[in-house]
Amino acid sequence: MSILEGSAQAFEAWANQWRAPIEARLLQGLSDVDRAVLECSPLHAAMAHGVLNGGKRVRALAALAAGQMCAAPADALLTVAAALEFVHAYSLIHDDLPCMDDDVLRRGLPTVHVAFGEAQALLAGDALQTHAFALLVSDTLLMPAATKIALLQTLSHAIGANGMAGGQAIDVQHVGLELSLEQMQTMHSLKTGALLRASLLMGAQCGAALSLEPLQTYAQQLGLLFQVVDDVLDASQSSHVLGKTAGKDAAANKPTYVRALGLNDARAYVQTLYQNCLSALTPYGVRAQPLADLAAYCANRIH
Amino acid sequence: MSILEGSAQAFEAWANQWRAPIEARLLQGLSDVDRAVLECSPLHAAMAHGVLNGGKRVRALAALAAGQMCAAPADALLTVAAALEFVHAYSLIHDDLPCMDDDVLRRGLPTVHVAFGEAQALLAGDALQTHAFALLVSDTLLMPAATKIALLQTLSHAIGANGMAGGQAIDVQHVGLELSLEQMQTMHSLKTGALLRASLLMGAQCGAALSLEPLQTYAQQLGLLFQVVDDVLDASQSSHVLGKTAGKDAAANKPTYVRALGLNDARAYVQTLYQNCLSALTPYGVRAQPLADLAAYCANRIH
Repeated sequence: MSILEGSAQAFEAWANQWRAPIEARLLQGLSDVDRAVLECSPLHAAMAHGVLNGGKRVRALAALAAGQMCAAPADALLTVAAALEFVHAYSLIHDDLPCMDDDVLRRGLPTVHVAFGEAQALLAGDALQTHAFALLVSDTLLMPAATKIALLQTLSHAIGANGMAGGQAIDVQHVGLELSLEQMQTMHSLKTGALLRASLLMGAQCGAALSLEPLQTYAQQLGLLFQVVDDVLDASQSSHVLGKTAGKDAAANKPTYVRALGLNDARAYVQTLYQNCLSALTPYGVRAQPLADLAAYCANRIH
Repeated sequence: MSILEGSAQAFEAWANQWRAPIEARLLQGLSDVDRAVLECSPLHAAMAHGVLNGGKRVRALAALAAGQMCAAPADALLTVAAALEFVHAYSLIHDDLPCMDDDVLRRGLPTVHVAFGEAQALLAGDALQTHAFALLVSDTLLMPAATKIALLQTLSHAIGANGMAGGQAIDVQHVGLELSLEQMQTMHSLKTGALLRASLLMGAQCGAALSLEPLQTYAQQLGLLFQVVDDVLDASQSSHVLGKTAGKDAAANKPTYVRALGLNDARAYVQTLYQNCLSALTPYGVRAQPLADLAAYCANRIH
């Protein structure tokens, strides 16, 4: 039994303090603009469209919550948070392309390739990945070079062929095909989980050394929870509520937790995973309250 | 008048010593493979197809030549060289996609999306960018963390929206449209020149501190030379010789130096740029011989 209880409402209140600083840091990260590129292409506009679109900033907030637990400086955490959201935006832009999920709607807005064409969307995603790394090696990020290297190791491990890109490759390779429950967990653990886990770890890496093993257990369970909730929402909510096309997974005959477990058991699984998250945080005591609240928020989100 | 003369033959002989170690380091860089991804997707095969295809390795060799001039350790230079070739391979894979240049042939082989489908090609390019950064922060790259950060700053600046991706964005935005000669130079300086300049600088950054200003002048002139030669070859050689579709620029109505200057004047411009390269190297004396030879090689290449 965990000593902590999570509260989605408390998380919303905590998160609301951070939303404006996060958006400001994202905007700042996009502000280094070459005039020739700006005048001769819509690349910067496409990048901004992909990043500044009212996202929930779960990865940024995860980094901030873990970093605060480790007493990390807010300024460094905001830069790390921006880098993580750049990576997330890059992955969504590429995921929405016609050769991938072919989606036209994202957070209620036209996807980047619908607004700017496929070529500019491809390049905007490419450049956002680069700029995520650029943020983490910037001289304005005040931390020892060795810490920056540690952050870059965590990020590059999480998003490459053995992480996010690998999970996406498994996903697109199995549209219309069966995956075992274990294979599906592996796929999601890479595709969605790896970046979320990296967000938590990178936040912690910005601060004082705590034992990171409990955080890694929490991160693993939270990543799984996040994906199961995504599947439940895709199967049970309207496009209007989600801000993206609902029912796409079923329509594309994709393997999902809802398809594997049924809607009711998938919902029950969310609650089990939520309790696992709380249990994992026990060693950290009350310092972990924002992470407990983050888990409650993820378990209870409706879009 | 430069004290150096370049020799394409001498460069070939020098480069031939390095080709096997470079290919070995590329293979090693691709060897960290997650079993689940390997078993459930062709992603790793697509990445290998894009990288291990008999490329000329100009960027790797440029880094090695500049690094040797600065007495940098060969082992570190080979890792940097591999990272640069990963970036180059990523850019070619994405550049060949149907939404970009839509090319089916590259170095005499089917392009990655022809061999593995568009989605896997997209992800292979994405992952190769990530793995380039991963190589540069690897613990097996033995250099101070601050030097790694400097390398990452050079690379991320060169390939993002204000570098290579920006140049590509200008390029695709102007198919069939006029660019002034100045705009075209800016476009190429970003699209092709930025990574080549970064290759030279990163090689030098691995070694002893020399004044980098002459190297930057050399790099700027060499990048320009490289692009003019590319345009000359596209307009004057067969697909068979090039190993890629010839005459594509003219067919696509793209702005090129040949279109702007005519074939003869473009060839004369190559010789001027070559002499500029040699002059820039004068302050380095005979240590710069491989760089002089690299310029001769680039000026005289036929594919």
